[in-house]
Amino acid sequence: MSRSKRVKSPAELSSASSIVIEAVSPSVDAGRYPAKRTAGRPCEVEATAFRDGHSVLRAVALSRAPGKTAWRETPMELVNPGLDLWRGAFPLDEPGRHLYAVEAWTDRYASWLADLKKRVEGGQPDVRSEALEGISILREALSRARGADKTVEAAVRALDAARSPAEALAAASVGGAPEVMRGLDSRTDAARTPKFEVVADRPLARFGAWYEFFPRSQTSDPRRSGTFRDAEARLPDIARMGFDVVYLPPIHPVGRTARKGRNNSLECGPDDPGSPWAIGNEHGGHTAVEPSLGALEDFDRFVSAARKLSLEVALDFAVQCSPDHPWVKEHPEWFLHRPDGTIKYAENPPKKYQDIYPLDFSTAAREGLWREMLQVMRFWIGHGVKIFRVDNPHTKPLAFWRWLITEVQSRDPEVVFLAEAFTRPPVMHALAKAGFTQSYTYFTWRNTKRELTEYLQELADGPGRDYFRPNFFANTPDILSPILQTGGPPAFRMRLILAATLSPSYGVYSGFELCENAALPGREEYLDSEKYQIKPRDWDKPGNIKGLVAAVNRIRRENPALQELSNVRFLPADNENILFFSKSAPDRSNVLLVAVNLDPLRPQACTVTVPPDALGRPGWREFRVKDLLDGQVYRWGERNYVRLDPAVRPAHILRVEDA
Amino acid sequence: MSRSKRVKSPAELSSASSIVIEAVSPSVDAGRYPAKRTAGRPCEVEATAFRDGHSVLRAVALSRAPGKTAWRETPMELVNPGLDLWRGAFPLDEPGRHLYAVEAWTDRYASWLADLKKRVEGGQPDVRSEALEGISILREALSRARGADKTVEAAVRALDAARSPAEALAAASVGGAPEVMRGLDSRTDAARTPKFEVVADRPLARFGAWYEFFPRSQTSDPRRSGTFRDAEARLPDIARMGFDVVYLPPIHPVGRTARKGRNNSLECGPDDPGSPWAIGNEHGGHTAVEPSLGALEDFDRFVSAARKLSLEVALDFAVQCSPDHPWVKEHPEWFLHRPDGTIKYAENPPKKYQDIYPLDFSTAAREGLWREMLQVMRFWIGHGVKIFRVDNPHTKPLAFWRWLITEVQSRDPEVVFLAEAFTRPPVMHALAKAGFTQSYTYFTWRNTKRELTEYLQELADGPGRDYFRPNFFANTPDILSPILQTGGPPAFRMRLILAATLSPSYGVYSGFELCENAALPGREEYLDSEKYQIKPRDWDKPGNIKGLVAAVNRIRRENPALQELSNVRFLPADNENILFFSKSAPDRSNVLLVAVNLDPLRPQACTVTVPPDALGRPGWREFRVKDLLDGQVYRWGERNYVRLDPAVRPAHILRVEDA
Repeated sequence: MSRSKRVKSPAELSSASSIVIEAVSPSVDAGRYPAKRTAGRPCEVEATAFRDGHSVLRAVALSRAPGKTAWRETPMELVNPGLDLWRGAFPLDEPGRHLYAVEAWTDRYASWLADLKKRVEGGQPDVRSEALEGISILREALSRARGADKTVEAAVRALDAARSPAEALAAASVGGAPEVMRGLDSRTDAARTPKFEVVADRPLARFGAWYEFFPRSQTSDPRRSGTFRDAEARLPDIARMGFDVVYLPPIHPVGRTARKGRNNSLECGPDDPGSPWAIGNEHGGHTAVEPSLGALEDFDRFVSAARKLSLEVALDFAVQCSPDHPWVKEHPEWFLHRPDGTIKYAENPPKKYQDIYPLDFSTAAREGLWREMLQVMRFWIGHGVKIFRVDNPHTKPLAFWRWLITEVQSRDPEVVFLAEAFTRPPVMHALAKAGFTQSYTYFTWRNTKRELTEYLQELADGPGRDYFRPNFFANTPDILSPILQTGGPPAFRMRLILAATLSPSYGVYSGFELCENAALPGREEYLDSEKYQIKPRDWDKPGNIKGLVAAVNRIRRENPALQELSNVRFLPADNENILFFSKSAPDRSNVLLVAVNLDPLRPQACTVTVPPDALGRPGWREFRVKDLLDGQVYRWGERNYVRLDPAVRPAHILRVEDA
Repeated sequence: MSRSKRVKSPAELSSASSIVIEAVSPSVDAGRYPAKRTAGRPCEVEATAFRDGHSVLRAVALSRAPGKTAWRETPMELVNPGLDLWRGAFPLDEPGRHLYAVEAWTDRYASWLADLKKRVEGGQPDVRSEALEGISILREALSRARGADKTVEAAVRALDAARSPAEALAAASVGGAPEVMRGLDSRTDAARTPKFEVVADRPLARFGAWYEFFPRSQTSDPRRSGTFRDAEARLPDIARMGFDVVYLPPIHPVGRTARKGRNNSLECGPDDPGSPWAIGNEHGGHTAVEPSLGALEDFDRFVSAARKLSLEVALDFAVQCSPDHPWVKEHPEWFLHRPDGTIKYAENPPKKYQDIYPLDFSTAAREGLWREMLQVMRFWIGHGVKIFRVDNPHTKPLAFWRWLITEVQSRDPEVVFLAEAFTRPPVMHALAKAGFTQSYTYFTWRNTKRELTEYLQELADGPGRDYFRPNFFANTPDILSPILQTGGPPAFRMRLILAATLSPSYGVYSGFELCENAALPGREEYLDSEKYQIKPRDWDKPGNIKGLVAAVNRIRRENPALQELSNVRFLPADNENILFFSKSAPDRSNVLLVAVNLDPLRPQACTVTVPPDALGRPGWREFRVKDLLDGQVYRWGERNYVRLDPAVRPAHILRVEDA
């Protein structure tokens, strides 16, 4: 380690500005990581900027769009003088990595003028000396004045001619001189912050409804794999439910060695298709498709059929191999070998994945491995895939993800990465900081009012709000949560509404709409899990909740308030089983009040309170709300009675119609 | 501005560690400024450290004492595995600027052993391949083993000989091999944070009672200045009140030009002594003493007399000049000249200080000016002054203070700087970050329970807790707060107790103990302010509260709980006029409960609640408390009745005697 920096001498400090700029927002870990925002919206910037004494400052946000070299300047405004708080905004017209900084300097003319004004208003009888100072500031600016020199010269003459303090004060503002001088300041004492990064993602990164399904299960015969063609036929049904993204588990050739049988058995029957996460066999690896699903052309056709229905296809990016993957032979240096020469299969002792070899991302040969990963991504991007759900990213080095995501997005900034990590909070956050666009969450394990409130407040207002975008999956092939196992269809309705209204991004794994809830005893795993077998279904089975799914997704699209995360506000409801919250568009043009019965088994009732400031419109006593689920209209006031019977109505999603 | 950094290739990333270390504490603005701590106590360090996967990590704090080149390593402990939170401590044996960093690495042997344990406990029948891995890790470490090679070799032999999983598991720990291996790890994947700075100050920087007085007023004749000899005679009285610091307004020659008369009048009478803040005349400037106070030798004698009474002398550091200051002629380049050649006097329009010229700390000639300031400080340090109360630091550049304080403390780390800035919060905080040891506060304007609670919580738990040390002055020559003007002696008693118990550093300006409260009408200024005239007093005047001051200062010294700031906890009291809080020593060996009547005019009563966890001792129902002000003992429980009559008893300061 080097020694501590020597203290600079006053001469060395000669270029040090007297101006301090601090608390710049958005910034993540003091600028170490980029903040996330949505392309097409301006990025609001705040900073604290001040200096010694009483001078007038100016501040601007400097910003640079991705791939550009030119910096653009937008003015900031002193919105809270008592806290030296400045605010501005710069445009994020296109997706990608934008840079910004804040610059502030002393407006010498405005400072002089403010001082002169106080003197004149304080009754100082003679300001001739002050006028000379003003003239000197004006003259110094003349060299930079170009088209504005007439104004500057007029102010000089007027100040020179002023015969009284009042005349001098008037002269100083002749022809809008202060505004002109604002643009002419030499900024000799300007301070500038380091550069901060903002990743602008396309709107889908913030707001979207995901539907996960296994193409091979789109069949009526559990021994015959469904194909991309079959999956294509399923798309209209998914589109009718109002989803934005269809996410497919790995579609690559499935390994044969140690292939898993039903329910994760080590015994594999002749018809068992194996886990799609055991990637690779003699037909290829991560850039091939499993032959029983069809050919690559069939996949392309599936992608374009989806696009026609306004659905986007997301692929699973699971960087691991079956022992039969071509890389095992071609690139043994990418795998972890034990002293006896064997390759370790994947495991998290005592859990074992005998059908999977992990890749060693820290190997000395990682240059080739990392580049191959990039090529795999670009291959699928070339086939129209712009969304990747990344399997278990927390078991690979953060430096790898930072590199990969930056590389991919530098060419294709619209690519979205969803981190499937269920691990400790610091690791979840580190992945989001490393670049993941969205993250899986603990939502499936947050059930009580207190758990949901605390978790949402942490997501909405905690340090992650600038970089951690939650995607609330209500279930996954790995997680059938206890409340769904025990709560029956009412629990599915309740959890759907919670996920879809609390988080702008949410998802379900297929079967959710059929309220499938058969679990392995004492586990959160599905019985007869689709991970290990083909599972034909009647998608229109009685008791399905597709109508509710469609309604909720329609409500999400029609109400901007549901397209944001940090606008949630929990409101009083005097029953621990009723969660009550508001969501409002920033301009309050769209205000929703949502009440959800968290108890799937019993009706619950209570009084909910709408505080006077919750609607953003002053002076109301009563207002009209419309339940967007059933169209009913109510007159509400500050305190309202709510009764929710899970068998009939799991929730109110009320839109404030007038107040 | 340079272009954004190019993304590194995987090869360039080859040295990137997989380990992330974040949220290092203490740190101020991500390490941009030093944190403050007390010399003689260890500095507790926390950090979040983790990596991908399931390896076992080790972490240490590296630290370097001031002026040393060697780094010392102290181990950190994983105190919260679910949050990857590590804690440790390094010594701050001496005052000055210490550096520290956190380093973490993968403990390869421990990781391997944890994995082996899971396998054996999971029933894996054969661990021979795993044993080979362990042997390879042990052998690799042999080259570094020196004295420990016997242990390592024994573990190799034992693992080699193991004939069952259970034997292998036992073999791995032979002779304490895991502990030995912990010290032998090659740390090839170690990550290290940047260096963070911690300023260790002597204990007085954290805890002390200050008494401000004007030596010239230590006289019986308002036309004859008191002298240092007179001031010396006053010291025993101040010592008896239990103060630690005597702070003197400027003691330098007072200017003659535009000297102010009584009550800040522009008319100065022949006997008017002028404001001591108008520094400098023909007798000298900042390194001279005002002749009417005596000679420099008399000051030296005063300092040593104070020292004998365990009192330290603090001087005012007011870097400004009377027009008669020698610098005005010797260094005209240090002053602001107007276009007409005149020097501006100090002002904050419409306020004017005609008797003062400000110095221009941003002048091109600042090299000489800044160095002169350093010489002035060192001059007084040479005369035994180690505490400076800095006048209006917010009107000088922050870069100057950062430079000056660093320079002074690099030679004399025990020097304490108190910032007398009453300005906007960001500027107050910026001065503390720039290096000021302590800061004046808004305490004088915080009166209600809500105001006091919010302000204390901000100071105790806000971002400033690592760098902003408040010094609660109950009054100053500039501030006679409305509550003191209207509340009479009960208000003085109440504000004394608040200042002295809420903040470990506090002070009063003389006259406070006499409950002087005559103000200029409608102002917070004293009538006949001592700033402009000599003010003889009877220091034993009836009605004085010297006995209470002495009692409170004794209580402060005897109770470690009152010597900290962040240990305050506000507790329920069902009366808006009664403030109730606890202060506890970190080990809970000393717990105080303080109840203060905030209403100086009327008795107030209420029930105060002591929550079950407030005493740090579980299972109590009743406990004994002793009022340290009057010695009375009470039996208390969770809820207690309190009645405080301001005429009789302004507060309880209760020590918990047993629970």
